[in-house]
This record gives sequence, C-alpha cells and structure tokens, in this order.
Amino acid sequence: MRLGDLSACTGVSVASLKYYQREGVLPAGLVSPERTASYDDTHLARVRLIRALLDSGGLSVAAVRSVVDALDRTDISWHALLGTAQRALSGAPPATERSAGAADGPNVSQLLQEWGWSVGPDSPYRAALTGALRALDAADIRLGPGDLSHYAAAMHAIAEIDLSTVPRDSPEAALRQVVLGTVLLDPVLLAMRRLAQEDVSAAVNSESVDG
Amino acid sequence: MRLGDLSACTGVSVASLKYYQREGVLPAGLVSPERTASYDDTHLARVRLIRALLDSGGLSVAAVRSVVDALDRTDISWHALLGTAQRALSGAPPATERSAGAADGPNVSQLLQEWGWSVGPDSPYRAALTGALRALDAADIRLGPGDLSHYAAAMHAIAEIDLSTVPRDSPEAALRQVVLGTVLLDPVLLAMRRLAQEDVSAAVNSESVDG
Repeated sequence: MRLGDLSACTGVSVASLKYYQREGVLPAGLVSPERTASYDDTHLARVRLIRALLDSGGLSVAAVRSVVDALDRTDISWHALLGTAQRALSGAPPATERSAGAADGPNVSQLLQEWGWSVGPDSPYRAALTGALRALDAADIRLGPGDLSHYAAAMHAIAEIDLSTVPRDSPEAALRQVVLGTVLLDPVLLAMRRLAQEDVSAAVNSESVDG
Repeated sequence: MRLGDLSACTGVSVASLKYYQREGVLPAGLVSPERTASYDDTHLARVRLIRALLDSGGLSVAAVRSVVDALDRTDISWHALLGTAQRALSGAPPATERSAGAADGPNVSQLLQEWGWSVGPDSPYRAALTGALRALDAADIRLGPGDLSHYAAAMHAIAEIDLSTVPRDSPEAALRQVVLGTVLLDPVLLAMRRLAQEDVSAAVNSESVDG
C-alpha cells in the first residue's frame, strides 16, 4: 500500500507518518520499480505500536525509539524485549544511566526475596513499590507482613494472566499488548477492586455498627 | 485535652479545626465547669478521618460531611457505613441524585452476575468498569471472557484482604482504613503488578525472539 493508505488504515496523518520516519521509529517503505514507496503489514503493526506508546503509554518519541531499537536486535529474548517496553512505561531513564538499585529500600529487596520473585536490580518498579509502601506507613496504615504477601500473591496471579494474553506471532503486536494491556487494564483492575469490596462487605458486614 | 493539644496531636492547625467545627464535621468539645472546651480520643479519631478524606481521598468538605453524617446514624450497618466512604471516593454524586444504573452498560451487569458479585445498582464503580472496558475495546485489546473472570477472581481476593484489615473497634478508624487503604494501596498493587510481570516473564520468556 501507499503512504496514504497506511494513513487511512491507522488514522494517523501522512505528516505524522513522515515525522516518525524522520525520527527513525518507522522504517521507510519498499521502493518499487515505479519509484513509489510501498508499505505492508509490518509498517501497519509498527504504526499501531508507535501510537500505543505515544498515546496510552505517554512516551516521548525518543523513548519510543529506544523501544523500537530493541525490536531490531536479532539476539534479544522475549523477556528482554517485553522488559524494554514495560520499563519505558515507568518514565525512568534506562538502567545504564542510573546506579542500579540506588532508589531501592532494603525492605523491597527483602520482600521480593520472601515472595520468591525474580526482578532485576535495575527495575524502576522497586522504587515505585518502596515509595508506595512509605506513603502507607506515613499515613499510619499498618499491614501485617502476612497481608502484604497475600496482596503480592493475588497480583502475581494478575501478572500470570497478563503474560498469557501476549501474542507471540509478532514482536510488534506483543509489545503493543504489553504497553496497552498494562496501562489500560490498571483502571479495569481498580474498578474491579472496588466492586469486589462491596461484594465482600455485603457478605461480612450486615450487622449494625451499634449492634 | 484543649483545642491546642488536639492541634498538636494531629498536626492540623487550630484555625482548620475551628473551620471543621463550623462546617459541622468535627463535634464541639465538652465544656467543663471552667468554661474551657475539652477534647478526647473521639475528636482525635474524627480529625484523623477528616484529614484522610480531604488529603488522600481528595474529598470536598461537603462530601466529608455526608460521610461523617453516616457516623451519627445509630441504625446504620457496617456495610452501609463503609459503602458511604467508598462511594464518596469515587467523586460521584449520591445515588439519589442520579437515576440508578443509568451509566451502566448491559455488559457489566452481566459480568457481575456471572462472577456472582452482589453490587448495588447505584454503585459508581459500575460505570467506572464500563468506561475502562470500553477503553480496552477501543484500543483493540481483546481479552477472552475467561481472562476477565480470572482477573476478577484475583481482584476479589484483593478485596477480601482489604476487608479483613478494617478495624472494628471504632467506626471512625474503620472509615479511615477504607479510605486510606483503598487510595494508598492502589499504587502498591500496581507496582506489585509490574514487578510480578517481570518475574513471570523471566520464567516463560527466556527464548530469543528470532529463535
């Protein structure tokens, strides 16, 4: 297809597509003997990924480039590829730019070990968990260590479903699923949490406060 | 204790405490024979609840009043009391101001029935779930109905932990836990989700993308 067709299929303007090409995130089309560039399904998948990263992921074009660069490495594992996308979402700089684990509280490493989770020392979500736990502490919300493990077990079950829904037929489609599935499913999960709270409360809280 | 002591204990200024009293969310102190007002633990618990609702819950003073009004009803059940706080968090107007279930898609009622969850027709989180599922759909992220049920089961497990941590010794403390536990635990759960994704991915995604 021509660039105009790619624009029509994806809903992205021709000007934006040309901008993605200049920025090196969208490969050029194949030039045919008639000297017109031609685009195929790989370009379509790439544009859909770029839009997912920019719109739902909130990434900058530079961050998008680091993710699509990983796509062009032939030796990369699925784990490293999906990790590239997931970490780009955090808005954290790549691991090499930071001292690994610097923001990590001793607490979180210990918790991860206790839960038996394998997480790289450079994961930005170690610091995210540390900060979130500190906020709980500051508000004087005390949870038993057992409670936290139970929460972790339930979120691990969520992550297992997350990974099971990632398609393997195309790395672009897999990355798009990781980005959108992570970002767009968060509000689904939080709404489910509140609806489930009402269900659980209905079952256990029928008696009167003064009764 | 005097009003100044209450201010020191809670970190809330005397001016703010007087403002809460004028707004009817903080009861007056007991006036002693020496004509000075005296405050006790019930005032302390109330101020801590007010701050939780205002700061972490993001509620308006008017919304806080509707929550603390529920505290003064002697016939209210724990379920209704906790629901008052939980729904106030959504920023939705009380059910009576809206046509119940108007924002509900047929989809969500069916899902709740399928999951066996007891949720009132006026819950604002029905509309929240509808909107979140629509966003997934619009992004062309397709999940099997089985996936959604599995997510729901994991979030139900989360809600069971949530409710098990609510103290029963004081309605104020219970409401505060519902508000802060809900709002402040969301980022903990979302950070756990991403850390668990890395753990699951490490286990299943070691092979090369091109391999």
